Amino acid sequence: MDTKKEELYFVHNTPVPETPAPGQKPEPWQQTQMVGQRRARVDGYERVSGTAAYPSDVILPKMLYAAILRCPHPHATVKKVDTSAAVKMPGVHAVISGMTPATNPVWNYRTWEGHLKKSKLFDPHCRFEGDTVAAVAAETPYQAQDALRNIDVTYDVLPYVSDYRKALDTGTPNIHAEGNQVGQPQTQERGDVAQGFAEADVVLEETYYTACEIHTPLELHGCLANWDGDRLTVWESTQGVYAVQATIAEVLELPLSKVRVIGHYMGGGFGSKGDTSKYSIIAALLAQKTGRPVKLFLTREETYLATGNRPSSHMTLKAGVKKDGRLTAMEFTAIGASGAYPAGGTSLLDWLIKDLYTCPNVRTHTTDVYINAGPARPFRAPGHPQCAWALEQMMDALAEAIAMDPIKLRLQNIPDFSQARPGNPPYTTTGYKQCLEEGATQFGWQQLRKKYAANKKDGNWLRGVGVAGSSWFLGNGFGPATIILKLYADGSVNLNMGASDIGTGTKTIMAMVVAEELGIKPEAIQIEHADTGTTQFASVSGGSKTVPTEAPAVRDAAITVKRRLLEMAAEDLKSKPTDLSLKNGKVFIKNNPSKAMPITAVAKLKQHHVIVGVGNRGPRPTDKTVIPFAAQFCEVAVNAHTGEVQILRFLGAHDSGRVMNRLTYDNQVFGGITMGIGLATTEKRVLDHNHTGKMVNRSWHEYKLPTSMDVPADMQSVPIEIPDDVANTTGAKGLGEPVTIPTAAVVANAIYNATGIRVTETPVNAVQLSQLLAQHRKEG
Amino acid sequence: MDTKKEELYFVHNTPVPETPAPGQKPEPWQQTQMVGQRRARVDGYERVSGTAAYPSDVILPKMLYAAILRCPHPHATVKKVDTSAAVKMPGVHAVISGMTPATNPVWNYRTWEGHLKKSKLFDPHCRFEGDTVAAVAAETPYQAQDALRNIDVTYDVLPYVSDYRKALDTGTPNIHAEGNQVGQPQTQERGDVAQGFAEADVVLEETYYTACEIHTPLELHGCLANWDGDRLTVWESTQGVYAVQATIAEVLELPLSKVRVIGHYMGGGFGSKGDTSKYSIIAALLAQKTGRPVKLFLTREETYLATGNRPSSHMTLKAGVKKDGRLTAMEFTAIGASGAYPAGGTSLLDWLIKDLYTCPNVRTHTTDVYINAGPARPFRAPGHPQCAWALEQMMDALAEAIAMDPIKLRLQNIPDFSQARPGNPPYTTTGYKQCLEEGATQFGWQQLRKKYAANKKDGNWLRGVGVAGSSWFLGNGFGPATIILKLYADGSVNLNMGASDIGTGTKTIMAMVVAEELGIKPEAIQIEHADTGTTQFASVSGGSKTVPTEAPAVRDAAITVKRRLLEMAAEDLKSKPTDLSLKNGKVFIKNNPSKAMPITAVAKLKQHHVIVGVGNRGPRPTDKTVIPFAAQFCEVAVNAHTGEVQILRFLGAHDSGRVMNRLTYDNQVFGGITMGIGLATTEKRVLDHNHTGKMVNRSWHEYKLPTSMDVPADMQSVPIEIPDDVANTTGAKGLGEPVTIPTAAVVANAIYNATGIRVTETPVNAVQLSQLLAQHRKEG
Repeated sequence: MDTKKEELYFVHNTPVPETPAPGQKPEPWQQTQMVGQRRARVDGYERVSGTAAYPSDVILPKMLYAAILRCPHPHATVKKVDTSAAVKMPGVHAVISGMTPATNPVWNYRTWEGHLKKSKLFDPHCRFEGDTVAAVAAETPYQAQDALRNIDVTYDVLPYVSDYRKALDTGTPNIHAEGNQVGQPQTQERGDVAQGFAEADVVLEETYYTACEIHTPLELHGCLANWDGDRLTVWESTQGVYAVQATIAEVLELPLSKVRVIGHYMGGGFGSKGDTSKYSIIAALLAQKTGRPVKLFLTREETYLATGNRPSSHMTLKAGVKKDGRLTAMEFTAIGASGAYPAGGTSLLDWLIKDLYTCPNVRTHTTDVYINAGPARPFRAPGHPQCAWALEQMMDALAEAIAMDPIKLRLQNIPDFSQARPGNPPYTTTGYKQCLEEGATQFGWQQLRKKYAANKKDGNWLRGVGVAGSSWFLGNGFGPATIILKLYADGSVNLNMGASDIGTGTKTIMAMVVAEELGIKPEAIQIEHADTGTTQFASVSGGSKTVPTEAPAVRDAAITVKRRLLEMAAEDLKSKPTDLSLKNGKVFIKNNPSKAMPITAVAKLKQHHVIVGVGNRGPRPTDKTVIPFAAQFCEVAVNAHTGEVQILRFLGAHDSGRVMNRLTYDNQVFGGITMGIGLATTEKRVLDHNHTGKMVNRSWHEYKLPTSMDVPADMQSVPIEIPDDVANTTGAKGLGEPVTIPTAAVVANAIYNATGIRVTETPVNAVQLSQLLAQHRKEG
Repeated sequence: MDTKKEELYFVHNTPVPETPAPGQKPEPWQQTQMVGQRRARVDGYERVSGTAAYPSDVILPKMLYAAILRCPHPHATVKKVDTSAAVKMPGVHAVISGMTPATNPVWNYRTWEGHLKKSKLFDPHCRFEGDTVAAVAAETPYQAQDALRNIDVTYDVLPYVSDYRKALDTGTPNIHAEGNQVGQPQTQERGDVAQGFAEADVVLEETYYTACEIHTPLELHGCLANWDGDRLTVWESTQGVYAVQATIAEVLELPLSKVRVIGHYMGGGFGSKGDTSKYSIIAALLAQKTGRPVKLFLTREETYLATGNRPSSHMTLKAGVKKDGRLTAMEFTAIGASGAYPAGGTSLLDWLIKDLYTCPNVRTHTTDVYINAGPARPFRAPGHPQCAWALEQMMDALAEAIAMDPIKLRLQNIPDFSQARPGNPPYTTTGYKQCLEEGATQFGWQQLRKKYAANKKDGNWLRGVGVAGSSWFLGNGFGPATIILKLYADGSVNLNMGASDIGTGTKTIMAMVVAEELGIKPEAIQIEHADTGTTQFASVSGGSKTVPTEAPAVRDAAITVKRRLLEMAAEDLKSKPTDLSLKNGKVFIKNNPSKAMPITAVAKLKQHHVIVGVGNRGPRPTDKTVIPFAAQFCEVAVNAHTGEVQILRFLGAHDSGRVMNRLTYDNQVFGGITMGIGLATTEKRVLDHNHTGKMVNRSWHEYKLPTSMDVPADMQSVPIEIPDDVANTTGAKGLGEPVTIPTAAVVANAIYNATGIRVTETPVNAVQLSQLLAQHRKEG
């Protein structure tokens, strides 16, 4: 175990050598001064000391607190809202509801896939427990909550459907006028699937389920809204300040320039803070009505009900393989649940089926349905972990059926182009093979498989190992990026970036990119970000896109500043700019390193006070596709009597292009695995289908997140570093989502390896597992 | 009286015609769509409704309040500071003093002229009543003040000198080791002064005094400091956030990028908030020590003692003139008082003598002295109003001596180049002649002079009129300017500017410049400004420089955005960018006005979300000089028995180049005149020279500012609009200071015209005047 201070949290942080071993070619991180090294976060002190002001920490003079009255029924119509008693309550400044048109603007509910659903802010048709009915602004949060209880709402309670597998059954209540099917089922086919199955030596079919998960970020959802004349400022815990700005401007019919959204720091989102919620509009309306700043942060319970989820899915996968390991056909039929509004219940659910492995004949069929429950939202790698749960268990089963090592089966089916994208563009880079091979080597795959094939037992525990792989459909980010960089006369730097750092270490990586280019210390770089008033446009931080989108723009800005600085310094040094370089805060003459001057001595820089550089993202390749790849490995022990699963070790081998910061890279891998362990073993939204339709585990106590006791101390990150210089000028591909995609399937495959039992439904249920183990023992 | 809503405050706002009269050449403001019109301030609502958050309004969670213990003696040495009782007081979190080196950094006291005085934050040698001795941070402002009273300071009280005219007398105590003279007396001479006087037909000599004035802005001086890890944010009521940033970074040895200074809105400065004060360092140190945000706003009393003043001056002017009105020689000897530290006690005091009128033989001699009183600071037009008080009364006296109209005397001596600047560069434009002539016409000068020459009496009142002119040494701003402009896809605009709007309407003018160029409404433009974290470098807003420095950069940025927008639109309109123009939010084809598209429909703009334009100030002419000119006129009535002076009417005719916003232009004129009336008639810092050396009128009650009762309802602004296109791309010259330079002299000349009594000392003293009037009556 490495005991260096910054690595105390995790073992197996492979140390990064400063220089290549004698006679060895330098690794990518050895060719840079700064990028690729381990760097603690530039805002680490603020975050851990509590001095960082998250949106929920911001207070303003005369600020009021708001609370939302939410429909307590899974399905109901609001007949009347009587606020007359509530407005007289102590400390109450305003109560709004759908009864007053002025405070009930049109709310075009946007889905991740671009569907549009016309509705109202307070829609009288409440389609889920948690739909908005009214809102209060009061002097204290307690007075606001008290007032909610004094709003008298007359509901027509309607019959509900909460089980997505029954949403289309005859006789179920319609949630939307058009029925309970969200748009049309999506069918895609290539090749001849029937023919493919006919050619297979082995055909297997299995049905897999994944439970609905809640994002549960540490920081609650919410915002603080304040009007300054005709200008609205909103401090919001969001992944994308420009997305919030756009929706607010549209709903409240304001110019974009008059809506300033600030999101410095944010305490987790995982997709649930990627677009705008009704609470932001409600806060803005209450602030306008009261003439006071209004803070509206939801309760934890509200975030369980209304701020999104990774929808449940029901997936049947049939696959055929030749004895030599060639896949001949796959057929995938899935149903997913958007919830009460269209929200991509099956988004990207079939992507890996279509894209990860070479297979000429593939058919996918997905159906998205409405249910009376909170709407879905993108959740770290939409569709992918669920699909991997099915596909990667199927690969495991196929390998066993043809008596082939599961890694070998995967290696035999790796394409070098995208089959799911039109035109089948080739990958710019693919390290999937290396992920599997290098991961297996470092994990000790062959030895452990052999060991546990000979003897799984260790007292009451059965041991086994598992592997799964994956890709993520998006590796090069999206949207434009514009960065403003200032180099001050004292050599310090200010960087303005529109994108949010959603906890992934974005700011630190950007500081490293600037430090690399300008030869200065990252500590001298101050980053202003996530503020529509003071930065340029940036798309939402999500989709593993922030580094590949923003870092090239940051580098471009730094190069612009560098060029200008060297032009200035050339005058002082009586040299040509091209003969100069920057390092350690100094300008050097390349061929005469003894002649150097500090940046701070450059005469024209002093005179101009500052150099301003504007950087842009630059174009993306159009004829190729950029995809990150991953393979993960784990070792489990399953109690043969109780069914308890202990995850002993995990290893993530990831090809996400260049490693920008080895420390945050590794931490992303460990965090993604932790989240995947939650999917595999603990997390599930429980709806009371039979009696009330309501969610029953709406608290941190009852909704089980994996704790430190559920996560192995022994986690290892193995970067497969192939700088992708075709993708962008930094060579980095996305990492944030790939790290959680294969994890659950790895656990299931390891459980199978240990027990011979295939767990097809998340989360693993120890009681069921113990019963199956008992049955096995009886049968065995 | 014009009763249009926006003009309710002042009469005589000359209406601006929308179009030229038939057959007339259009005036400058008629050649633009927006610039030159009357526009209410873009932040007017916020300012008058109280929603604008001035730095003194900002509060942060867990914020502490600080207070400064100031030396109660005009001159003393601190022997010991005992804070042991104070730190135990309720609510007290920290007490700092010069006893602890860690909280007593080096403080390089900067003067406006660039002098540097090495000292400490808490210097044990207290040179004025109000020098800093210790500071406290506590839970409430009251607890902080209570704690101050429990700090036990042992002083060695020293003898003092508070009268600047005695500062160099033998036996006066030395305030600085080098004596009481600030540097060397400054002597400048051109021609042969003795010869010039010999050639004169008339030689007059007079001594003039101006009293020391205090800036007294509405918003108190102070700041709020907060540390976020290694990064300090300071909200400060300042004229220049980058100046504050620079000093804090230097004193606390921080990188510039780690000091963020925000100064949105500021409630007046007039020069006293142009550089950094010790309180900013004290707040930062207390915030660091306590780990809490610390707010430190001074009391009103402290601002009288310690935040600067327009120093007193004692000026002797001897001038010779030929009977035909040619000036032959001037000799000017002046003494001014920096106060306790070097602070430009005679800065620019001789400028108008050297520069305003053609005179071949000029000698000036100025001496700056230390006294035991608060240091001076730039005060709206340093040196100029005092010098005008002398020079313009002398011109009046000379005109009378040679029996020439005082306007004619001035007109005969107008140069077209600068005599005070090396190389005598020609003026880019000069409207001094027009100021005098057009002002005289609009004022009715000839008629009133004739009328009052015939009969001054109106009951107990004596009536008269006066005129004075002036220039201001700086008309084209200084320092670089960099502007970032964003055009959003919805046609709204965000403008980022480093400069402060110190109450002069800068933001509104910048919005008009952008609106002019992009053909959009100023209301759609949001301005982020005065924040070192989110804007580019800007020099201090002072010296009448903000418009001529920033507006050309704003225009440059707007042109960059426009060019890019037209390129994009040309693709949609299948046209050339050069064939397109912008108006009313639309892109037009110039030769086919029926074919137009809204900006919001431009395809590439939608796709890119935003166009970013960076604008720079551009170079200034090097072979010419840019100078604003003014002539002001007033009518007074003086009570023949009591000496009471009533100012009945004022007119300001100003050549400041292009009029950017006629409404704020006029209001500047009226505000400047009001301040000049304060100098002439009410304002004076009174020091108790004989007994204590302390200031005796340290409150708004005792220090007399002119009220609405002291200012005429009848004020008129007559712009002499000569767009100065050589100066910069907007044609604007500085206005903020010229408007107050001649005012006091105008009043004195009018009093002379009414009474025959020359008031040579400010403020006019009714008792003295009544005595002189009685003497006159006796003699007459």
